[in-house]
Amino acid sequence: MRVFGIDPGSERTGYGCVESDGRRHRLVACGAISSPPDTAFPERLRTIHAALARLLIDCRPETVAIESLFHAANVRSALKLGHARGVAMLAAVEAGVVLAEYTPAEIKRAVVGYGRADKHQVQQMMKLLLGLDEPPSPHDAADALAVAVCHVHCTTGGAAIAGRAAGRQRLRSWRQVKPADLGI
Amino acid sequence: MRVFGIDPGSERTGYGCVESDGRRHRLVACGAISSPPDTAFPERLRTIHAALARLLIDCRPETVAIESLFHAANVRSALKLGHARGVAMLAAVEAGVVLAEYTPAEIKRAVVGYGRADKHQVQQMMKLLLGLDEPPSPHDAADALAVAVCHVHCTTGGAAIAGRAAGRQRLRSWRQVKPADLGI
Repeated sequence: MRVFGIDPGSERTGYGCVESDGRRHRLVACGAISSPPDTAFPERLRTIHAALARLLIDCRPETVAIESLFHAANVRSALKLGHARGVAMLAAVEAGVVLAEYTPAEIKRAVVGYGRADKHQVQQMMKLLLGLDEPPSPHDAADALAVAVCHVHCTTGGAAIAGRAAGRQRLRSWRQVKPADLGI
Repeated sequence: MRVFGIDPGSERTGYGCVESDGRRHRLVACGAISSPPDTAFPERLRTIHAALARLLIDCRPETVAIESLFHAANVRSALKLGHARGVAMLAAVEAGVVLAEYTPAEIKRAVVGYGRADKHQVQQMMKLLLGLDEPPSPHDAADALAVAVCHVHCTTGGAAIAGRAAGRQRLRSWRQVKPADLGI
């Protein structure tokens, strides 16, 4: 099973693709999509959409897993986040991939064991579960991997087995995707 | 000058394209994009994006005008609206069209004369300004035309001249766009 997790954000969108048999997980790719700080908002959306479209072709997952959001700090941040999440969902549906959604508490429960884990704990658990030599960073990439692993656990009924990753892996699949990489 | 207005919404997205010399306006096309009620949310986003992409090719505007949103009834509705607005902005930026944003109060002031006009007044004013034989309906289409006309007025410094539309027009350019029309 190959699952592509997305942690959408207008400043930085994390992604993480995981291959798993339900018990052992292997990192396929992870990273973050970002634009230079002075990039106009519509161009940011274009970069997120184009980068995810290309990554979905490269990674060929069966499922895209994404955090379901029913809350945000305030209406303004909800609107901005909604834009980024909208173009991320569009990339998934255009790629013909099944979309699965999980609440933040479900994700943390599935990967750390309890629903109020902090970002540092999620990063450490991703390092452990994927057998990486360092925790995925920035946390957006770790959060994206977490939602992918959450989907694996929720689908297979498997529990996190720390240290039983499919071999020790270097975190070399990490990538920072910028507009220049996409030719836009 | 040809301006394409969008009134985004996950249930129904209004659009309206206007051609103008700054004083006389002509309706090019207007309508609404919607999906059957049982359509999944990601598919709705796909329909909005695909329909707008096609309409922007057909209408060939120089500018896309869209309502800027910094408020919504609540965080949940802001998130949903953000998704629809995100894919709408994406369609505009992919089409290489300039994007202009106006607040709801700016739009109402520009087309009706004061910032707290209601939807019925906007519909009636669009009928008058575009010389239509009936008000554009549903109100999403009228709101989309209003943001397009607002851009014309704000760019040319022109004021609304009721009844000086470029000839009497039948509202035959109205169209309801559904997924089946897009082959998706």
